[in-house]
Amino acid sequence: MNFERPNIKTMKGYKPGEQTEGSGIIKLNTNENPYPASPAVAATLKNLDAENLRRYPPPLADSFREAAAKLHNVNENNIIPTNGGDELLRLAITTFVDPNEKILVTQPSYSLYPVLTSIQGGILIQIPLQQDWSMPSDFEVSLTSSGAKMCILVNPHAPTGKLLDTDYLARLADSFQGILLIDEAYVDFVDPDFQYNSVSLIESNENILILRSLSKGYSLAGLRFGYGIGPQHLLEPMLYKTRDSYNTNTVAQHLATAAIESADYAHSTWDRVRKSRSVLTDGLNQMGLNTVPSQANFVLCQVPNSISAKGLYEGLKRQNILVRYFDQDRLKDRLRISVGSDTENTALLEAIHSLIKT
Amino acid sequence: MNFERPNIKTMKGYKPGEQTEGSGIIKLNTNENPYPASPAVAATLKNLDAENLRRYPPPLADSFREAAAKLHNVNENNIIPTNGGDELLRLAITTFVDPNEKILVTQPSYSLYPVLTSIQGGILIQIPLQQDWSMPSDFEVSLTSSGAKMCILVNPHAPTGKLLDTDYLARLADSFQGILLIDEAYVDFVDPDFQYNSVSLIESNENILILRSLSKGYSLAGLRFGYGIGPQHLLEPMLYKTRDSYNTNTVAQHLATAAIESADYAHSTWDRVRKSRSVLTDGLNQMGLNTVPSQANFVLCQVPNSISAKGLYEGLKRQNILVRYFDQDRLKDRLRISVGSDTENTALLEAIHSLIKT
Repeated sequence: MNFERPNIKTMKGYKPGEQTEGSGIIKLNTNENPYPASPAVAATLKNLDAENLRRYPPPLADSFREAAAKLHNVNENNIIPTNGGDELLRLAITTFVDPNEKILVTQPSYSLYPVLTSIQGGILIQIPLQQDWSMPSDFEVSLTSSGAKMCILVNPHAPTGKLLDTDYLARLADSFQGILLIDEAYVDFVDPDFQYNSVSLIESNENILILRSLSKGYSLAGLRFGYGIGPQHLLEPMLYKTRDSYNTNTVAQHLATAAIESADYAHSTWDRVRKSRSVLTDGLNQMGLNTVPSQANFVLCQVPNSISAKGLYEGLKRQNILVRYFDQDRLKDRLRISVGSDTENTALLEAIHSLIKT
Repeated sequence: MNFERPNIKTMKGYKPGEQTEGSGIIKLNTNENPYPASPAVAATLKNLDAENLRRYPPPLADSFREAAAKLHNVNENNIIPTNGGDELLRLAITTFVDPNEKILVTQPSYSLYPVLTSIQGGILIQIPLQQDWSMPSDFEVSLTSSGAKMCILVNPHAPTGKLLDTDYLARLADSFQGILLIDEAYVDFVDPDFQYNSVSLIESNENILILRSLSKGYSLAGLRFGYGIGPQHLLEPMLYKTRDSYNTNTVAQHLATAAIESADYAHSTWDRVRKSRSVLTDGLNQMGLNTVPSQANFVLCQVPNSISAKGLYEGLKRQNILVRYFDQDRLKDRLRISVGSDTENTALLEAIHSLIKT
């Protein structure tokens, strides 16, 4: 007997990148920060008492909201803490998109969006990016005429690392009748010279919802902590109606608060990642694995036909180096490689060099 | 502009019991265990390294699944770890109940069920319990003829603490065409003499899904860890399709595993709670606050009209003692009181005594 709803029965689940606990593996497949979390996080963890866990956590993670509001110079009511950024995506869809309403995304993009749309019974509209992975020139028109209830854009884009600027997003939000959800999981790695700042838009745009994550920028993928920034009227139904009442645990609340209160430390890791990204990009380009200029902590490169992306992925894996291969349209000839430490990046480049020579 | 789905716009959210971080408060309102978690949990927490948090957690919490499977003598495929028991409820509804399908619960019951039903756009059927809070004699008939896709029973029942026996649940599952979700958040406090054992039913009943929680029995409400036990065909779509891919964090996985691997320690706290429950029950009865015989770690008592339940709740609160008052049909003359430590229970009884005298 099968009890699944028809849409669940026919859908395919999201497939996370390989996670491994083995040592000696160079793991460049799921975009973790190569540097440790802030010492303040380690100190907070060390001082935690198990007795704190006997009671329920503050349902709204008040201390974190306060710290995040301060960090972004917004009101606490503009912050919703979530169990990873993925929870915010799910909550937003649950709250705002009725079954049979439309969600518009670009193609390619984060492959969880179609999965969450299927779960909700929504209709997915995928707009293909141009050949160079930039937005189609008529995207704004496509969006406004789509009748979509929500548009989700990951910025910097995954899996290419391309950045849309603040003005472009403001224009989209202005003309769009639905909610523009900007998934900024990788925003911490954007070069400050771009002066990217979407948070400033939430004051004037009542339809912008921003996703932030501590997984990459704050070296806390294992903690599952993300948050949304947005106008109060968008956050309130998620905070008080659709969210599981105790969605983040006590440990995560304490550590996440310590992390963003010591954001200066994380900033220093972002600088290092940006420098390493540049070296990695050059190294790949020099070997003929052409890259897309990336503002994230990963690089998408094209693999020569002679070896094939899948072949290179497998060859690297045999050498205990994990990178991400997407078996999907337009990405079959590419690899997405997380920016690791300098040692890891050098080992990767050397391994690629030896594999494409043979 | 309001973007909420119509069902979200009109619904009311779940209101969790007051959480307080102040000291000197006797907190008997949200059913936490009065005794600390196992020393193994504290030791595991002490040994955790923040560096473990840099990477994503094992998506399926493999170590926990293994430990839970061993504890319940089932296969790992019969276990789904969740971010609190509440997540299992949400996942089950998301996965199996289409909008406009029916969910049947008793009235009263855990007030989150109606909230989750509203979010999914399902139809709620509430079957009133009898005057003595037992199941109506025709419940089985009502259930089978309801056309419900899912029936959720909390057992022991909240907020009364009454226990349904294993045979009764087996009969219900046999005749019911939908999924019988047995919410066993409080099952650890059941007297072993009852030989209650619903887990044995999942081998022969393909429509039983059991919810377990570490919040009460294992003194870990702050950790947000629960799990489901059920036949593989019910768990798989939740594990691989509808669940957020990294739904439990690394810290929670480690601590939850330590907790159930040292379940003997938790058992000792359950014994103490059962003994205290008996003393608390007697004390309340002696003052004329008639109780329902409870197999949970709380007691529902009726408050004489002379003072009123709400009045007593407020009077206790002024003395820094928190209990739970439900402003809803059939419960307005009652208080639900968590079983605390012996000191806390004595203080509560003395406070009630002084309040009902005046």
